[in-house]
Amino acid sequence: MAVRMKDIAEDLGLSVVTVSKVFNNHLDIGAATRERVLRRMKELNYQPSLHAQGLASGRTMMVGLIVPDLVHAFFSEVAQSISDVLRKKGYGLVIASSDEDPELERSEIEQMIRRRVDVLIIASCQSDPASLKKVVEQKVPLVLIDRSFKGFEANFVGTDDVHVGEMATEHLIGLGRRIIGHIGGQTVSTSNDRLAGYKKALAHHKIALSEKYIVRRTLGDQAADTTGREAMERLLLVSPRPDAGFCYNDPAAIGAMNAILAAGLRIPEDIAIIGAGNIRYAESFRVALSSVDIPRKALGEYAGEIALQMTGKKKPVKTRKILVSPKLVIRESSQVSKVSLTAAPRPKKRPSKAVARPKTEW
Amino acid sequence: MAVRMKDIAEDLGLSVVTVSKVFNNHLDIGAATRERVLRRMKELNYQPSLHAQGLASGRTMMVGLIVPDLVHAFFSEVAQSISDVLRKKGYGLVIASSDEDPELERSEIEQMIRRRVDVLIIASCQSDPASLKKVVEQKVPLVLIDRSFKGFEANFVGTDDVHVGEMATEHLIGLGRRIIGHIGGQTVSTSNDRLAGYKKALAHHKIALSEKYIVRRTLGDQAADTTGREAMERLLLVSPRPDAGFCYNDPAAIGAMNAILAAGLRIPEDIAIIGAGNIRYAESFRVALSSVDIPRKALGEYAGEIALQMTGKKKPVKTRKILVSPKLVIRESSQVSKVSLTAAPRPKKRPSKAVARPKTEW
Repeated sequence: MAVRMKDIAEDLGLSVVTVSKVFNNHLDIGAATRERVLRRMKELNYQPSLHAQGLASGRTMMVGLIVPDLVHAFFSEVAQSISDVLRKKGYGLVIASSDEDPELERSEIEQMIRRRVDVLIIASCQSDPASLKKVVEQKVPLVLIDRSFKGFEANFVGTDDVHVGEMATEHLIGLGRRIIGHIGGQTVSTSNDRLAGYKKALAHHKIALSEKYIVRRTLGDQAADTTGREAMERLLLVSPRPDAGFCYNDPAAIGAMNAILAAGLRIPEDIAIIGAGNIRYAESFRVALSSVDIPRKALGEYAGEIALQMTGKKKPVKTRKILVSPKLVIRESSQVSKVSLTAAPRPKKRPSKAVARPKTEW
Repeated sequence: MAVRMKDIAEDLGLSVVTVSKVFNNHLDIGAATRERVLRRMKELNYQPSLHAQGLASGRTMMVGLIVPDLVHAFFSEVAQSISDVLRKKGYGLVIASSDEDPELERSEIEQMIRRRVDVLIIASCQSDPASLKKVVEQKVPLVLIDRSFKGFEANFVGTDDVHVGEMATEHLIGLGRRIIGHIGGQTVSTSNDRLAGYKKALAHHKIALSEKYIVRRTLGDQAADTTGREAMERLLLVSPRPDAGFCYNDPAAIGAMNAILAAGLRIPEDIAIIGAGNIRYAESFRVALSSVDIPRKALGEYAGEIALQMTGKKKPVKTRKILVSPKLVIRESSQVSKVSLTAAPRPKKRPSKAVARPKTEW
């Protein structure tokens, strides 16, 4: 463990109180003693404890973050961004993953409370807010990110997910597609709302909604590409076959695209695909993936700033809700090039990718 | 902040010492008082502080982790794995990213020391171990992961990166390729050693080494796909053009592949590509990426276990060095299918991907 005041005191045959007084510039210490202590601190490169400083003010200088999956690039980018904001104010970020397991999340929440984090930031995988109410009861300031709960007042930084679902689905309808499948997630607000947006867009265009084109996942994000593939395999069996698919997140879309290609079908000619999240490398997948971008960096920054505002506040502060704006990023997976729109019927085996097809983003 | 002993004491008009004695089952507290305190603890759902418990034993129950880039899937998987090991023993993981910036890493190290983490785990982006020596001087137990330093004794969990470079290059040579480019990283042990392995494999097969086929990055991992693309753009101008490329990590390989495809060339027919790390979704990229897999989960588990063994130990323990075994994962980017080996000369514009080409892994 690091050099402590105690070590310096023992080295010099002084009391910890004396050493502490020197460190805090008390005037009742003689010049010779002060000199000895400061010299020894320098020799040992003594670093004052943030804990000791924090505890005096009732703070631990730690913010807790619980995400469903740290390896999902969406959440690691958010974590990175929160960390960047906190570090500038000397706060550390304790990170835990719930693996999209509500039970594990509850246990991590308990640990964070016992760890006395100054603020707790959670992208919750619970389907109801019961365990989050306990956080509030324990007077631990709480910031929800990405996922919220109806009827549960809390600080929240996320996006309008109904709008995300609408944007994605409207885009597919705009391509002339009419049999649009949806691959949804577990029952958290993001996937619930994106599904609602999908339904809203269909209704707006008077396209009949059919439940057989909706496949929702029951498992968590961690295996989203696997379950996305399985969901698409099911959708490919529905008759008539869908000509487009909106996947609630990008990992699911990757799996869905792999299923389509494995079935010998073309993207986007046979089935256009769009995801949500616009994760790193989305442009480098087998077919460059269209997505609804959700600005992770801004989301993390807002969450970090709210957390900083709440540290050390004993009384509840007015809750804040901040929504970052999603934006459509169109790539090859939902872009029908002019060539293929005007071309004569093509041989069945024509591969799905043209090497130099341009990308468009806006 | 969470409910504290102090709050309970104030509520009941008792001293904190009394409340603490009840909590710790001291016998010198009357039954009535004990009853009142325990009831109030239950009502408020009091969670004992891990800090308070830890401080008594000189520990903070926190392990620090500094990685170069949290969003690079390799490091987020390692972090996840370390966290899984620590959580079972009640330890938390404080994570910081250095953004591959040695200066920022030094500042994060200082913060971690001031935070009194029980152990510090670092994948360092320094080119010399000076700032890590300071960690040792401060008596903070240290575990290096992924990247090590010659002549600096420290616990280390990583892989034999010379072997990684050899395996990758041997594989390309085995495909019959003879003009093999290398895209390297900054001067840390992983990229230094992978380059050494590349040279060793060439020497073993008596293939002349030419510096013009080696492009090393000077920037960090964060923009590895961008710099991988730029490096490949440079290699494509070299005459004769390389027929294969070994990239020191997968993000660089993604960028390199994008540059090759943008130039209208085919992977692997014109240029075979292999990366290292085998990051998540490597199989879903524009061309499924061959890579040398480095078992992240095992690496993180070993690091977490060593960290646990060192917590609370004041005297230095014998340092340990654990190497996880890399393994070759061959996918489309370096696999010439039988069809294309036996086929007649193909039209220049033939796209690089066959939809149903099988993947092989071993």
